[in-house]
This record gives sequence, C-alpha cells and structure tokens, in this order.
Amino acid sequence: MNHLREEIWFNTPNRRDYINITAKVEEFVRKSGIQNGLVLINAMHITASVYINDDEPGLLEDYDEWLEKLAPHAPTSQYCHNRTGEDNADAHLKRQIMGREVVVAITDGKLDFGPWEQIFYAEFDGRRKKRVLVKIIGE
Amino acid sequence: MNHLREEIWFNTPNRRDYINITAKVEEFVRKSGIQNGLVLINAMHITASVYINDDEPGLLEDYDEWLEKLAPHAPTSQYCHNRTGEDNADAHLKRQIMGREVVVAITDGKLDFGPWEQIFYAEFDGRRKKRVLVKIIGE
Amino acid sequence: MNHLREEIWFNTPNRRDYINITAKVEEFVRKSGIQNGLVLINAMHITASVYINDDEPGLLEDYDEWLEKLAPHAPTSQYCHNRTGEDNADAHLKRQIMGREVVVAITDGKLDFGPWEQIFYAEFDGRRKKRVLVKIIGE
Repeated sequence: MNHLREEIWFNTPNRRDYINITAKVEEFVRKSGIQNGLVLINAMHITASVYINDDEPGLLEDYDEWLEKLAPHAPTSQYCHNRTGEDNADAHLKRQIMGREVVVAITDGKLDFGPWEQIFYAEFDGRRKKRVLVKIIGE
Repeated sequence: MNHLREEIWFNTPNRRDYINITAKVEEFVRKSGIQNGLVLINAMHITASVYINDDEPGLLEDYDEWLEKLAPHAPTSQYCHNRTGEDNADAHLKRQIMGREVVVAITDGKLDFGPWEQIFYAEFDGRRKKRVLVKIIGE
Repeated sequence: MNHLREEIWFNTPNRRDYINITAKVEEFVRKSGIQNGLVLINAMHITASVYINDDEPGLLEDYDEWLEKLAPHAPTSQYCHNRTGEDNADAHLKRQIMGREVVVAITDGKLDFGPWEQIFYAEFDGRRKKRVLVKIIGE
C-alpha cells in the first residue's frame, strides 16, 4: 500500500466562499502514482466543508442563500456558541449540511468521476488562514 | 491490496425515487473476495444521493416530504441555477442533505452492518440514465 | 495492509445526547500500530450520527435546538414512519443532517486532525444499547 499526504491552504476574502479544488486534487493523485485506491479530502477546520457538486455560478448562489435560510448568521445572539465571543455559530451549522469530507475512488490513476462531479471547498467563516487535507492510499 | 470497481445503473420512472441497493453491493463484495477493507458507494451524478437508513415505506415518504419542505422544487424560478434552462436546482440541494456517498467496512468478507442498515440510492432528478460507483479495496 | 475492528457501546440516559469519542478512537489507532491509512467511524444504528466538530457546550445546545427546528420530534403523528408504532421518525431525519460516518486520515500513527476537530457520537433515540464501529486499514 502506498500513500501520500498533502495540504491545500486558503485565506478567503469573504466570510463565505466556494472554491473549486478539483485540479489541485488531480495533481496530487498524479504525484502519488497510485493507480487504484481512495482519496480522502477533508476540511481541517470545523466551520468549512468539502463537498462534490456542479461548478455553476447560479448554483453556488443558490447554496449560499439556502444555507443562510437554514442557518442564518444574524442575529448572532440567537446562538449559545456565540457567548464564547465568537460570531460563527451559523458556520458550524452550515458545515454540517454540506459535510466535512468526501472520499473519491481512484481508478487507472485518475479521480473516478461522473460527468459533472467537481470538488469544492466551502468556507463559512473566512478571512483567516485555513486548510484542507488530502490523503491518498492505494497501489 | 486488492480492488474491484463496479457500476449500478438506474433510469427511474419518477423525478424522485428511493431504491434499496444493498443486495447488489453485497454481491460485489463477495465477487471481490476481499475479507477486510472498505467499500465506497457514491452517486456519480450531482442530483442524486447514496445514503444508509431503514427500508421502511413510511420513512421513505417522510424523507420525500421533508426534503421537499427544506428545498422545494417549485416555483423553479426561485433558483438562480434554473436560469441555465434546467429545472433541477432543488435536486442539487436535496442531495447535499442526504449525502453523495457512504463508506462501509468489510469484515470477514461481508458488509459490517448494524441490524437495520440498508444502502439506498436516492434519485432527485430521474427519468434519465444515471449510475452509482462501487469501489472496494482491501485484502 | 493491516486492519483493526473495534466497537464502542452506548446507553445514553436521554433521548438525545452528544458524546465526544475522540480519545477512544485515538486509543484504537495506537492499538492498530498503523502508521498511514484511514479510519472509518460509523454509527451502526440508523437514528444516530458520528460527526466531527467543536467540543463546546454552547454549540452542542445550538445543534440540538437547530435539529429540533429542522425535524421536530412532536407531534409524532406528523410522520408516516411512526404508524409502525415507533415514535422516532424525527431521529431518522436528524441523523441525515449530521451524517452516519466520518473517515479520518492516519499519519505517523495519529489521527491527522486540524486544531479543533473532535469526533462525536450524536444519539437521537437513546435510552437503549447502541454502538459505533471503528474500522482501521493501512500500514
């Protein structure tokens, strides 16, 4: 069994951002030389998500509005967590909807993807340094 | 490390459907001959889910109603994504609630499941050909 | 490839509870002797979740209130599933929001975690014996 570990770093300009990281993950899969296996891609922070869906700007707007409806940022006083001095409780909730991680199959040295699958980093509490872990195992 | 890759194809009659695929996955695990490892089962399309829960008809109705409440199909004009000519923005949202994939342990050549765990394919934009990927790794 | 399989058992005093199981999983990773690989941690029951987020009491309260708003327990008659004699349909819904499982990378013999990542068992239909599966593979 072979393995590779890499990180992707972010410092997004906005509180919430949606960034396509597929090309970066593909690069790490090539670098690993692994032909068959699994790749885990996970947010290392608890107010961000890694998810797989379409890279279509309208859809990213829809996600953002929908998440804000299901778990609104304001008023920040509605959340117990914000009594700690934070204002990001909503980000911990939004991240549960979108998920922490994805696991993708590697076949013949490539991400084994359907036609529209793209890997996204979703930031819900940005404007600070954060990172994603990429761990590849296989042969 | 051994591995096996299989696909399961669907063309559901309705926009939304919930299909138990456990027996199919069990068959692939047997075929792989793998005694200990992991199996990844993921939708290859971005308007469908693979999830694990109970095979109880009332619950499937509950999921369907609940998802329609959290992310209604109509009016389709409420979603930016539908400006592309699609009418399936809601399906991209529903899929995030139910998830893209599951990872299941294989122990002694079998799916290592609790008493009620069943693997489902959830279709949110059916009436077209779509598929699920099954990737097994282990020894 | 090496592997280890362990279970963690629960019998929570309340219908809903949130329990930090990180130390237990770390213990199993050490016991496995695996230096690089993946660990799968999943609820073996379909009315419970395993998820990763912050161990902050205010946040646990926020999750609980939020889940109860998105999928209320009462009136139990609102759910088709409860016609079976159960009263836990809401627990099957809440579990889909929080997820069934997490997959965590193992690097240098340790859980490869960001600064605040903690593994939680979330019980949505407690007061009975239930368990979590921990499956580790790697080398």
